[in-house]
Amino acid sequence: MKVGIIGATGYGGVELYRILSNHPHVEECILYSSSEMDVPYSNTFPHLHDLSDHILKNIDVEDIKKNIHVLFLATPPGVSRNLTPQFLDSDVKIIDLSGDLRLKDRNEYEHWYKRPCVEDEVLEKTVYGLSELNKEEIKKATLLANPGCFPTATILGLAPVVQNRIIHEQSIIVDAKTGVSGAGRNISQATHFSETNENIKIYKVHEHQHIPEVEQALFALNDGITAISFNTHLIPMTRGIMATIYASLQESYTTESLLDLYKDFYAASPFVRVRKQDEFPSTKEVYGSNFCDIGLKVDERTGRVTIVAVIDNLMKGAAGQAVQNFNLMNGYEETTGLYFAPIYP
Amino acid sequence: MKVGIIGATGYGGVELYRILSNHPHVEECILYSSSEMDVPYSNTFPHLHDLSDHILKNIDVEDIKKNIHVLFLATPPGVSRNLTPQFLDSDVKIIDLSGDLRLKDRNEYEHWYKRPCVEDEVLEKTVYGLSELNKEEIKKATLLANPGCFPTATILGLAPVVQNRIIHEQSIIVDAKTGVSGAGRNISQATHFSETNENIKIYKVHEHQHIPEVEQALFALNDGITAISFNTHLIPMTRGIMATIYASLQESYTTESLLDLYKDFYAASPFVRVRKQDEFPSTKEVYGSNFCDIGLKVDERTGRVTIVAVIDNLMKGAAGQAVQNFNLMNGYEETTGLYFAPIYP
Amino acid sequence: MKVGIIGATGYGGVELYRILSNHPHVEECILYSSSEMDVPYSNTFPHLHDLSDHILKNIDVEDIKKNIHVLFLATPPGVSRNLTPQFLDSDVKIIDLSGDLRLKDRNEYEHWYKRPCVEDEVLEKTVYGLSELNKEEIKKATLLANPGCFPTATILGLAPVVQNRIIHEQSIIVDAKTGVSGAGRNISQATHFSETNENIKIYKVHEHQHIPEVEQALFALNDGITAISFNTHLIPMTRGIMATIYASLQESYTTESLLDLYKDFYAASPFVRVRKQDEFPSTKEVYGSNFCDIGLKVDERTGRVTIVAVIDNLMKGAAGQAVQNFNLMNGYEETTGLYFAPIYP
Amino acid sequence: MKVGIIGATGYGGVELYRILSNHPHVEECILYSSSEMDVPYSNTFPHLHDLSDHILKNIDVEDIKKNIHVLFLATPPGVSRNLTPQFLDSDVKIIDLSGDLRLKDRNEYEHWYKRPCVEDEVLEKTVYGLSELNKEEIKKATLLANPGCFPTATILGLAPVVQNRIIHEQSIIVDAKTGVSGAGRNISQATHFSETNENIKIYKVHEHQHIPEVEQALFALNDGITAISFNTHLIPMTRGIMATIYASLQESYTTESLLDLYKDFYAASPFVRVRKQDEFPSTKEVYGSNFCDIGLKVDERTGRVTIVAVIDNLMKGAAGQAVQNFNLMNGYEETTGLYFAPIYP
Repeated sequence: MKVGIIGATGYGGVELYRILSNHPHVEECILYSSSEMDVPYSNTFPHLHDLSDHILKNIDVEDIKKNIHVLFLATPPGVSRNLTPQFLDSDVKIIDLSGDLRLKDRNEYEHWYKRPCVEDEVLEKTVYGLSELNKEEIKKATLLANPGCFPTATILGLAPVVQNRIIHEQSIIVDAKTGVSGAGRNISQATHFSETNENIKIYKVHEHQHIPEVEQALFALNDGITAISFNTHLIPMTRGIMATIYASLQESYTTESLLDLYKDFYAASPFVRVRKQDEFPSTKEVYGSNFCDIGLKVDERTGRVTIVAVIDNLMKGAAGQAVQNFNLMNGYEETTGLYFAPIYP
Repeated sequence: MKVGIIGATGYGGVELYRILSNHPHVEECILYSSSEMDVPYSNTFPHLHDLSDHILKNIDVEDIKKNIHVLFLATPPGVSRNLTPQFLDSDVKIIDLSGDLRLKDRNEYEHWYKRPCVEDEVLEKTVYGLSELNKEEIKKATLLANPGCFPTATILGLAPVVQNRIIHEQSIIVDAKTGVSGAGRNISQATHFSETNENIKIYKVHEHQHIPEVEQALFALNDGITAISFNTHLIPMTRGIMATIYASLQESYTTESLLDLYKDFYAASPFVRVRKQDEFPSTKEVYGSNFCDIGLKVDERTGRVTIVAVIDNLMKGAAGQAVQNFNLMNGYEETTGLYFAPIYP
Repeated sequence: MKVGIIGATGYGGVELYRILSNHPHVEECILYSSSEMDVPYSNTFPHLHDLSDHILKNIDVEDIKKNIHVLFLATPPGVSRNLTPQFLDSDVKIIDLSGDLRLKDRNEYEHWYKRPCVEDEVLEKTVYGLSELNKEEIKKATLLANPGCFPTATILGLAPVVQNRIIHEQSIIVDAKTGVSGAGRNISQATHFSETNENIKIYKVHEHQHIPEVEQALFALNDGITAISFNTHLIPMTRGIMATIYASLQESYTTESLLDLYKDFYAASPFVRVRKQDEFPSTKEVYGSNFCDIGLKVDERTGRVTIVAVIDNLMKGAAGQAVQNFNLMNGYEETTGLYFAPIYP
Repeated sequence: MKVGIIGATGYGGVELYRILSNHPHVEECILYSSSEMDVPYSNTFPHLHDLSDHILKNIDVEDIKKNIHVLFLATPPGVSRNLTPQFLDSDVKIIDLSGDLRLKDRNEYEHWYKRPCVEDEVLEKTVYGLSELNKEEIKKATLLANPGCFPTATILGLAPVVQNRIIHEQSIIVDAKTGVSGAGRNISQATHFSETNENIKIYKVHEHQHIPEVEQALFALNDGITAISFNTHLIPMTRGIMATIYASLQESYTTESLLDLYKDFYAASPFVRVRKQDEFPSTKEVYGSNFCDIGLKVDERTGRVTIVAVIDNLMKGAAGQAVQNFNLMNGYEETTGLYFAPIYP
C-alpha cells in the first residue's frame, strides 16, 4: 500500500506521517507540499532527523494517480475544492482532512466558510467520516471528509443522548476549549507566544465554521436538532480539546443510567472510553493518542446534564481519525497502527 | 491607618500586601500567620527582599484590637468562624476574604461547605461586598464578606440582564475557567506542575461552593433566579478567570442595545470595562489589575446571548476587590491605590 | 514634562507607557508609530481600554522638537540611525532603547549587527546608560543608549568581580535564558506558540549581537577582559531573563566574602538586590519590577564562582531602566515612579 | 518474558509501562507499589482507562523470584539498597533506575547522597548502563544501574571530545535545564504550578548528586578529568533536558571536523542523532522518544566549543534507556520497541 500526503509541512501532515510511517500495511509514504519542494522533509521538521529521508515533492496529479493508493489531503481551506475533482476518474481513494467536503448543503458551506463550495459531483460522492457513527458507509467510501476537531469531540459527546432523545433538542450548549496547535503551523498575532501564554481567549463567537458540521451530524441522529450554541476558547497549551456540553434532560435520569447508555452505545468503539461515575477526563489523559474520553453527570438541581468529551486535536481530531478511517476503508482492523497509550505526564 | 493581614503567607495575603504597601492612606501594615511566626516575611516571599522588613507575627486578638483599624482575613475555610466573633465588641473593621461569611442561609453554607456555619450574630452583621452592586451598604459596613473569585466575574457579567429581566431566569449556564493560583499556595496533586501543565481539567462538577453565592446575589436582583448551571475548569496558567455565560433572551435584542445597557449599568463603576461591539476580553488583558472586563454578543440563531467576563482572580477576585471595599468602608475614593494598568504582555 | 514614545505599538513601548502614565513628573505622554496611525492606542492594546484615549500619531520631527522634552525610541534596529541625527540641534533629550547606539566601535557594530552604523557625531554624543555603573555621565546625558536586556543582567552580575579583578579575565562564560517577549511583538515561526511551548531552544550560538556590548562594558571596568563566551536560550515563558555566569577565581574566596563585596558595590543601587547566602533568585521574583537580583556561590572543587542575575527583560532589561535613566537625566530621584514590588505569583 | 516494575506509580514507572506494554518480547508486565496496593493501576493513572487492567501488587520478593525474569526498580532513593541484596542469589535480572547503584566509590555516594551506600557485593556486581558507551558489559549484566537523566545528556554530549582529548580536562562547564517531571510525581512547593510556571529557578547549586556520576563516567574515558562545573535549572515545561556544555579546545578545530568526529563516534548508536552544521536541537524535537540529539559549534573568538545535548528526561533519561538496556541484556535488537518518532509539536 502506497499512500500520499499533500500538505505534509503542516501539523496535520506531520502527525499523519508519525502514524503512517509505523503502520504495518503502509509500504511507502510519499510527501507533497506546494510551499516547499525538493527539500528534505527533515529540514522542515528536524525532529525527524535520521528518521525520514523523504524529499518533499511537488504535487503532480498524474504521478499520484499512477503511484498512490490512498491520498491524504492535509491542506488549507479551498485546496480540496481544486484537487479532488481531478481524481474522480481514478482509483485513488481520498481522505480529506480540510473542512471543504464536510457540509452536504453547499449554501451552508458558502455561508460559514465564505468561499465557493466544491462541485456537486464531489459532494455527492463524499462520505462523512466520523468513524464511530458511520462505519458501514466509511468502509465503502472512496472519497472521505474527515471530521473537524471540535465536531469530533462534540458529536461523540452528544450522540447517545441525541439519538435516544434524552435531551431537549433546543437546549444544547457547547463550550469548547482548544490548545493552540489547532490553529496550525502558520504564524499569526493570535498564536504569537507572548500573546497566548498565560491567557484565555474566546474567538469566532457564534461564528465558528464547525457549528454547521456539528448540527448536520446531530440532525442526522435526531431531526429535532436545528441550532446549537457553540463557542471556542484558545488555551495556553499545544494539544488537546475539551468540549463541555450542557443540555436539559427530557425527564429524570441518573448519572449511572446515562453512563450505562454511553457504554452500550460505544461498546464496539475501541477509541471511545466512557469514564467511571465521578471521574471526568482531562485533555492530558488522551495526549498523543486516538482516544475520545467521555465523562458526564446529571445535575438534579437544574435538570441538566454536563457531558465532557476530550480528544487530542491532532489525533482523534485530525490525523488519528484519518488513519482510523483509512483502516476502515481498506478492510484493516480499525485499531491497526493506532492503538497506543497516551503519553503521560 | 493601621491595617492587619491574617494569612499573609497565602497568595491572597501577599497580593493584599502588594497593594496596601503602596496605598496612600495605609501608614502601617502588620502581618500575621498561624503557620510561620517570628520569621521575616521575605523568607517566605523572597520577591520582597529589601522591600519588606516585616516579621510575621502570631495572631494575638487583644493586640490586634488595640493596634489595628482594619483587619483583612485571608485565611483558609473555617478560620473566620472562630476569629470574627472575637472582634464583634471592638472597633476593628473586618474584611473577610474567605467564603465563611458570604452565605446568608446557614443551611446552604453547611450543605455546600460541609462544615458548621458561623454564628447568627456574625452573619447578621456581615455585608456582602460586591463593590459595584452594594456600594451604599459597604460604605457603612464594619464586617464585610469579600466575594469569591468566580462569583465576582459571574455576577458582574450577569447583573444588568438579570436585574432588567432580559433573560429567562432558568436558562443561565456559566462555564468558568481559572488559572491555578486560585487553588492557593498549599500544594496538592491537582496543582503539581507536571499534572497541570499542558492540561485542562474540569473539577467539582455541579458541586462548587461558589454556586450558592452566585445564586444568592442573582436572586437579590431578580427573584425569579433559583438554580443556575455552573462549572469550573483548571487552565495551565497562573492568574486569570474567564466566565463564559450563556442565557436565553426573553425577547429579541441586538448586541448593540445590550452593550448600551451594560455601559449605563456600569457608568459609575470605574473597574468594570464594557468592551466594544465584536471585541471580547481575554484574561491577560486584566492581568495584575482590578478590572473586570465584559464582552457580549447576541446569537440570533439560538435566541441566546453569550457574555464573557474576565478578572484577575487574585485582584478583582480577591485582594483587589478587598482593597476597593476597604476604600469604600473608610470614605476614600474607590480607586485609591488601585487604579493601575494591567501588565501586558 | 512632556514625553514621547516612538514605537509605542511594540512591547517595549507599551511597557514604557505603563510606567510613564503613572510617573508623577510626566504631564503628558505622546505616542508615535510608523505602522499604525490615527487609530486609538487601545485598539492595538485592548488592555488599555478606558485607561488610554491616546491616538497614535505619525512621526513628525518638527512637531516633536516643539512639543516634547524627552523622547523614547522603542524602535526596531536601524530606525535610530535615521532618527537621532535629526534631533542633534534640538533640546529634545533622547533615550534610545534599540541597540543602534550602544557600541562605540562602529566596526564592531557593523560586524555584529550586519547594518551600517550611525554617524560619528551621534556616537560621540551618546552615553551608555547602565544606570548603576554610569550614574554621573547619565545625569548629564542628552542622548542615551539604553542597555540591552542580556547585557544588563550580565554586566550587573559581573561588575564587582570584574572591576576588583577577582576572576580570571579569560574565564567568563555566560549561559543566558530568556522569556519569549524579548523577541518582541512581531510574529515569527520561532515565537509561534506551538513551537515554543514545552520547548527550550538555543539560538544565535556565539553570534548574539549583545556579546560586544557586554565585552565593551566589562573592558571599561577591567581592560584584561577581551572575549567572553555567551549563549542565549528561549524558554517557554513570557517575561524574565536569567544569566547564569561561570568564572574562575584568581585566588580563594568564600561565598560570604564575595556577597559582602557585592553588597558594598551595590550599596547605593536601590534596584540591585544582592541575595542572602544559599539563596538564589528566580525570574518570577522580579516579574513586572525594575529589580536585578543577584545570588552567587563559590565552588571550592573547581575554583569557580557561579553568579546568577535575574531581571524582567521588559523592565530592568528595557522600559524600566529607560525610566530609571530618564529620572537620572532629569534630576529626579532614581526610583521615582519605579519602586514597586514584583507581582507574585 | 515476564517483567516487573517496582515503583509503578511514579513517572518513571508509568513511562516504563507505556513502552513495555507494547514491547514485542514482553509477555506480561507485573506492577508493584509500596504506596498503593490491590487497586487498579488505572485508578492512579486514568489515561490508562481500558488499556490496563492491572492491579497494583504489594512487593513480595519470593513471588518475584519465581515469576519475574527482569525487574525494573523505579523507586525513590534508598529503596534499592534494601531490595537488591535480596535478589543476588536469584536469576532475576535487575535494572535499577534510581541513583543508588551508580557510583562505584561508596564514599562519594555517601557524601553526595547523604545516606548509607549499598553493600559492596551489590556494588561490585553492578554494571553502569550508559548504553552507547558500555554496550559489551551491559550485554552480560544481571544487575544494572541505569544512568541519571542529566548524566545521560552530559556524558553523551562530551564523550567524543573527552575520549579523544580534544578539550582541556579542567575546562568543562555544564549548564543544564530540565522540565519539571524530572522532580517526579511527589508534590512539593518547588513543583507547585503557580511557583514554577512563568519562572526559571536554579537549584542545588554545585551540589547536584549527578555531578559525581558524570565525573566518574568522564574519568573512565579520560583520567585527566577530575572536577567539572555543573548546574541545573528548572524550566516551566513538563519534559525535556538540555545540557549546554562549554569547554576549551586543546588546539584549533573546525565545527565541521568535530561534527565528523561525533558522527563517527556514534555511527553505531541508533539513538544518538548528531545534527548538521548550524543546526542545534531543541528539547521538543526529542519529546516522547529515546533519542539524544547533539549539536555543536566552535567559537574561534574564545577557543571554546559549545555542545548542546537534548533528551526526553523520562525516556532516554530514564525509562527509554532502561528498556534499551533491557534489550541489550536479553540479546534483542537495541531498538526493539523503542524506535519511534518524537511527538511534534
